[in-house]
Amino acid sequence: MGLIDLAQVRTIATIGAGTVGASWAAWFLSGGARVHCSDPGPDAEVKARALIAGAWPSLMALGRANETFEEAIERLRFFADPGEAAAGAEFVQESAPERLDLKRELLQRIDAALPAGRVIASSTSGLMPSEIQEGMANPGRMVVGHPFNPPHLIPLVEVVGGRATDVKTVDWAMAFYAAQGKHPIRLNKEVPGHVANRLQAVLWREVVHLIDEGVASAADVDAAIAEGPGLRWAMMGPTLTFHLAGGDKGIRHFIEHLGPSMSRWWNDAGKTELTPALSGKLEAEMRAVSAGRDMKALAAGRDRKLVGILRAVSDR
Amino acid sequence: MGLIDLAQVRTIATIGAGTVGASWAAWFLSGGARVHCSDPGPDAEVKARALIAGAWPSLMALGRANETFEEAIERLRFFADPGEAAAGAEFVQESAPERLDLKRELLQRIDAALPAGRVIASSTSGLMPSEIQEGMANPGRMVVGHPFNPPHLIPLVEVVGGRATDVKTVDWAMAFYAAQGKHPIRLNKEVPGHVANRLQAVLWREVVHLIDEGVASAADVDAAIAEGPGLRWAMMGPTLTFHLAGGDKGIRHFIEHLGPSMSRWWNDAGKTELTPALSGKLEAEMRAVSAGRDMKALAAGRDRKLVGILRAVSDR
Repeated sequence: MGLIDLAQVRTIATIGAGTVGASWAAWFLSGGARVHCSDPGPDAEVKARALIAGAWPSLMALGRANETFEEAIERLRFFADPGEAAAGAEFVQESAPERLDLKRELLQRIDAALPAGRVIASSTSGLMPSEIQEGMANPGRMVVGHPFNPPHLIPLVEVVGGRATDVKTVDWAMAFYAAQGKHPIRLNKEVPGHVANRLQAVLWREVVHLIDEGVASAADVDAAIAEGPGLRWAMMGPTLTFHLAGGDKGIRHFIEHLGPSMSRWWNDAGKTELTPALSGKLEAEMRAVSAGRDMKALAAGRDRKLVGILRAVSDR
Repeated sequence: MGLIDLAQVRTIATIGAGTVGASWAAWFLSGGARVHCSDPGPDAEVKARALIAGAWPSLMALGRANETFEEAIERLRFFADPGEAAAGAEFVQESAPERLDLKRELLQRIDAALPAGRVIASSTSGLMPSEIQEGMANPGRMVVGHPFNPPHLIPLVEVVGGRATDVKTVDWAMAFYAAQGKHPIRLNKEVPGHVANRLQAVLWREVVHLIDEGVASAADVDAAIAEGPGLRWAMMGPTLTFHLAGGDKGIRHFIEHLGPSMSRWWNDAGKTELTPALSGKLEAEMRAVSAGRDMKALAAGRDRKLVGILRAVSDR
């Protein structure tokens, strides 16, 4: 399968312009690309422009965007028909709702319209590429490129192909996202939740277990991350962190030294389920934590700090 | 039980001057306290001074220290006898090796020397306060105050009492650590690993599972944290993150919407054990990741970035 050179990618189609799709559009625009957007929702274009405008100050603060929003938005074009948006693009990023039937039908339409040699990536978090690519005329060029919210700030993109995906498509997508300034990781096989959401999930199960058992409040368990290991995980993953903790002998020493404790903690970890009672408890505690704080202000503060964190770690 | 006013704490005894104890000493010195240190190791004083000197630039960059190392170190005194170090202190932070017999014997000696109304905290990560306080004449004033490495940079302190601990001691320790500029959390009951290490452990189990299964390389699984959710966890714990992700209806909406996926990922999580084969695989991958990079330089870079991250999130 012959795929176009990365240097030939000038126009990117972002299909679906909700929070994920519009955030992708902002990222691609800020890198200088032309963006073809399509979304069937009412006022989709107005909403997408507002989301991109909202993302722009962060992109400038990061040094990613070096022109004004007004200049960049000139390169955005909206299309009623997703096929039409894809027809003139050299790459497609699909971010439609997480419904298998909808994604399949949409990708088939895109596939029919997109010229040969061009890759189609799906932002899906919950579906498997093998499921989505079924029915496509050219499933070999379809891959998952799963971003992390918000995609215009978080570098991670999880790249994974399905059974029918050509290995060259995975290679190309890895190189493409890296060239676009993202940090792609390569999954060698499909697993539910890809990697990052699985990791978030197991962490949160123990979080809710400790809250459910009354070991500590939700605010205190949250602080056990954000005031502790979370500060290190912003710059270094868990295994390299433990490797460095092991001194000269690295991870081997760490496992020899802390392996028994690790096993003990693993065996003691909870198997809590999200019962209505636990959900109610979490809701009450989170209401108390955010009492008197505007959710929009909290979210804006989070994005502002995220920019600061990204700048702090960017010399890696 | 009458405990002294926080304002009366002028001198803090740090018993044990390894990496944890010396880091505690640096933190307390940088807050203006006098520090009485004791450690039986050869060259303990020279090593502790070197560790404190090494920590000082970070403490100044954080705005925590506002005098030179040479000025601050004048307030450090070394004692051969831990009882003597404690006798003139208003608070004791014990950071001896993680051996129950050693800690018990040491805390009994400290307890015998420390005047009434003063609290003894243990930095233990792996032992329970109920175990350690056994045999103390005044177990009611003993509490765990578990820091996170490196204690002079990471705000988290986990506070938990044992069966014999007076509730007022826990209250006092919470107020003390907060007054010292740390972020204490309160555990209502003893559990193995306290909170943060349990959370690190469950996360790492899924990390090693995904590596073991060949889903992705160790470097890529690490990046799934450090380039993804880890960036958010540096400023906000998992539950508040999900609460904000739920929009106006918060965590309730999040659970309604993502609960089923969460359960699916929980059920699919691995039960990997740290076999010699897996340990060897992790070692080989970490060697490759850190190839040509000086471990000391990596650690120094980590601390430098940590200071940047702490500054970025400090407006919370």
